[in-house]
Amino acid sequence: MNASSWVFPLRLPPPSLRDNTADADRLAAALRREIGAEVRLPLELLYDLPAVLRAADWRVRCALFREGDGWIATGVFPGEEGPSPLGAAVDLGTTRVALRLLELSSGRVLAEEGFDNPQAAIGPDILTRIHHAANPGGLEALAGGIRKALNDALCGLLAAHGREARELTHLAVAGNTAMTHLFLGLDPGRMIREPYLPVVNRPGLIAARDLGLTAAPAARVFVFPNIGSYFGGDLIAGVLFSGLHRRAEPAILVDVGTNAEVVLGCRDWMIGCAGAAGPALEGGMSRIGMTAAPGAIDRVRIDPATGALSFHTIGEVAPRGICGSGMIDLAACLFRAGWIDARGRFVPAACGDRLLGQEGDRLLLVPADRSGTGEDLTLGQAEIDSLIRSKAAMYTILETLCLSVGLDLEEIGTFFVAGSFGCFIDPRSAATIGMLPALPAERFLPLGNSSLEGASLVLARPEHLEEIPCLRDRITYLELNVNADFMNRFSAAKFLPHTDAARFSAPADGGPR
Amino acid sequence: MNASSWVFPLRLPPPSLRDNTADADRLAAALRREIGAEVRLPLELLYDLPAVLRAADWRVRCALFREGDGWIATGVFPGEEGPSPLGAAVDLGTTRVALRLLELSSGRVLAEEGFDNPQAAIGPDILTRIHHAANPGGLEALAGGIRKALNDALCGLLAAHGREARELTHLAVAGNTAMTHLFLGLDPGRMIREPYLPVVNRPGLIAARDLGLTAAPAARVFVFPNIGSYFGGDLIAGVLFSGLHRRAEPAILVDVGTNAEVVLGCRDWMIGCAGAAGPALEGGMSRIGMTAAPGAIDRVRIDPATGALSFHTIGEVAPRGICGSGMIDLAACLFRAGWIDARGRFVPAACGDRLLGQEGDRLLLVPADRSGTGEDLTLGQAEIDSLIRSKAAMYTILETLCLSVGLDLEEIGTFFVAGSFGCFIDPRSAATIGMLPALPAERFLPLGNSSLEGASLVLARPEHLEEIPCLRDRITYLELNVNADFMNRFSAAKFLPHTDAARFSAPADGGPR
Repeated sequence: MNASSWVFPLRLPPPSLRDNTADADRLAAALRREIGAEVRLPLELLYDLPAVLRAADWRVRCALFREGDGWIATGVFPGEEGPSPLGAAVDLGTTRVALRLLELSSGRVLAEEGFDNPQAAIGPDILTRIHHAANPGGLEALAGGIRKALNDALCGLLAAHGREARELTHLAVAGNTAMTHLFLGLDPGRMIREPYLPVVNRPGLIAARDLGLTAAPAARVFVFPNIGSYFGGDLIAGVLFSGLHRRAEPAILVDVGTNAEVVLGCRDWMIGCAGAAGPALEGGMSRIGMTAAPGAIDRVRIDPATGALSFHTIGEVAPRGICGSGMIDLAACLFRAGWIDARGRFVPAACGDRLLGQEGDRLLLVPADRSGTGEDLTLGQAEIDSLIRSKAAMYTILETLCLSVGLDLEEIGTFFVAGSFGCFIDPRSAATIGMLPALPAERFLPLGNSSLEGASLVLARPEHLEEIPCLRDRITYLELNVNADFMNRFSAAKFLPHTDAARFSAPADGGPR
Repeated sequence: MNASSWVFPLRLPPPSLRDNTADADRLAAALRREIGAEVRLPLELLYDLPAVLRAADWRVRCALFREGDGWIATGVFPGEEGPSPLGAAVDLGTTRVALRLLELSSGRVLAEEGFDNPQAAIGPDILTRIHHAANPGGLEALAGGIRKALNDALCGLLAAHGREARELTHLAVAGNTAMTHLFLGLDPGRMIREPYLPVVNRPGLIAARDLGLTAAPAARVFVFPNIGSYFGGDLIAGVLFSGLHRRAEPAILVDVGTNAEVVLGCRDWMIGCAGAAGPALEGGMSRIGMTAAPGAIDRVRIDPATGALSFHTIGEVAPRGICGSGMIDLAACLFRAGWIDARGRFVPAACGDRLLGQEGDRLLLVPADRSGTGEDLTLGQAEIDSLIRSKAAMYTILETLCLSVGLDLEEIGTFFVAGSFGCFIDPRSAATIGMLPALPAERFLPLGNSSLEGASLVLARPEHLEEIPCLRDRITYLELNVNADFMNRFSAAKFLPHTDAARFSAPADGGPR
């Protein structure tokens, strides 16, 4: 069957001596008539079932979810009409977790919220957390922390909208493979050692109560599948949201974080790839890096006449640090103005007295009296080096993917850019430093939080969930660790913009802004 | 597929950079190759999976169970060879619970044990317990009590055989509908009010941990389906064990307890029926009734010459009471000797000074100085009346079932008699009082604890589990509450042996013993 909703109003025939099948079997029979398939009714649904069935004279709304090839009932509510059962879509980010509450019957979003991933207190980056998980009690602390924080956020959202936990029957959670493992309480330790094995690729449907989440007694959590240790469910959710897998012409989806993750393809084929991009674009690792929050520099300009640096910050407050897109903008400005050379080294003659320290290896961006922290904001050589590795990794991955299918990067009509990063990035700046190809700006489409959007889609319409197994299986994963040419291309990309600078000349049709 | 075992030895291809699918998905792929179907790997199986897969170099034994139309893995153990994973078969009796530990790979029984149902402390009979379940905390106390007692017994059996809980991956539980509900924590309250609705007919597979049972983390419990409030999973298990559903010629299965439960049929059709038989054969309700335990009178004889009553007891110790089969034997002896008449009334002239009390309504069976209780064992008129109602109910159900399909009771070639009752009953005595038809003794086949045997079969071979849904659905249930003729036939059967005594004349071919 092709159900167009997760919620079904049902009218059950009332029981009689000549029709005295059990309550659960009566409901299952009505569901079979309605959707033409067997629906599993888990034990925890049965406790209240007799009362619910009788509360509105055998008329109910039943919330169903997909379980493998079958169906499972996750909630039954009195009355054919009434408030929609609820779903929660969750983007399980390494740094930030975003969640949405929505109506299952319509897909309408009721509320959205975010919170910092409390695992950051244990380790700001994934690698530290994976190592910590190997300590006694470490995995439990990481899993318990994120589950409790998510549960608190869910309860808060529900309360703020006057809804109850028992109305929440569906959850969809998308995260990278490590975050997903830590959320499920599975040891991610083998993901970082050759041959880089997750415990599970397709976690499927999990009982919410098994994850300690306060929801309907029979609520289930759909956990997005991953393709491997470095290609997670957040990216699968992103592909789903982008619709790349349904397009006739090849497109690219890029997601930049600690890893550069890329999918190239169309409705006929898809190829995916991921590689370590380093922490330069994540915030938190470099001295002035931060997430895209108020006070983060997100746009940089150098006046060609005066050589004055000017900044735009999120929230337009005094600058406290710089986010990933700001970092790209900054590097592009510095390179265009000649303050850094093709290797990313500061050019003293251009930087002048802005270079600080005995080594002259830190550039003053914002003096203490104008910064939001009361201290100088400076950019170090190491941070530029780190950014160059990141941008080189991204470009090399794009190049490798295109080469593997005999396409030229310039032939790609659409570049989806995932993440909050994608909303702020200036494609011209990214092309200036040789991170993304120099294509017309209109070919770049920012997707926002595509992981959260993909998770929301799944809860809005069953057919989106049904796309996922096929979508996932159709992506051929290109393992860079066994790709001998990759390192050569990566070395060539560690220049601004590239050893082959001709690749980044302005395109004929308008060019980058 | 038609698996011939629940346990599969598997050799997984070790991972490499070119084959680095996740551990769980590697196992699922191996299972797919082995059994040709998708197998669900529940979250709780995944915690230890990486360690188990590596402990014996990617060679494992995997225990699978049926879940709906699919499969679920309930345990993975290192090595292709090794001790078999274990199953536990449970007969969840109202009075007594019996369980068996067996090897899943061979079906070999390792141990068997029984314990008194602790719910008896709350109420000796089902009806009292159902009423108690409606009290605050009542249902939880009943469910908690039986679960804890079963868990203790399982742990004891495992320990006594040097096995561990994590080896126990499969359980199969058969009980009547009320006991099943109380075990699952489901309110049985509507079962005893028109139109007599259970909460569930087909509980299916339940996670052992959801029932508080100590077993393998992913262990699952198959709970036998029922047909209705008065036709439980114990009887389905009994039919499975009897093989009635595979026979070419019609046979009858009877199970006598508080309810008389009967199935008539063959491989082409089956019809089932149950009716309240009263407590006369259950022990515990009448003043001298007891279960079939040491000290229970199970055989009675009256010397035709001297009129002396003699008794055989279980364990051949001093008599403490009388069990169901003893009660039938006693009533038959008294009737043959003329001590009670066709209405079951004591005949003072025949009973003589054995009749006690001012009303002369109690018959002395065993004087205090020869009884095991130090008190007189006496039989009251009320107890005989109760027995007559029980036997009338059983006979009327048999008669009604046969009439409904146009068969004569005498045409039935095989009478399976379920329960410990069936092992002890003397068919001649049962025919003397008109409880069972007067057929040659060899047509009666005692099945022993057919509920436990049926549960064991399910764990011994998957094909038996696969028979159950079809077996259950093929039984047409005859609802006596809507059968107008039933009460007339019941009234006619409340005589010894029957108002139509000719029905119980000795048959030509040897006759009852």
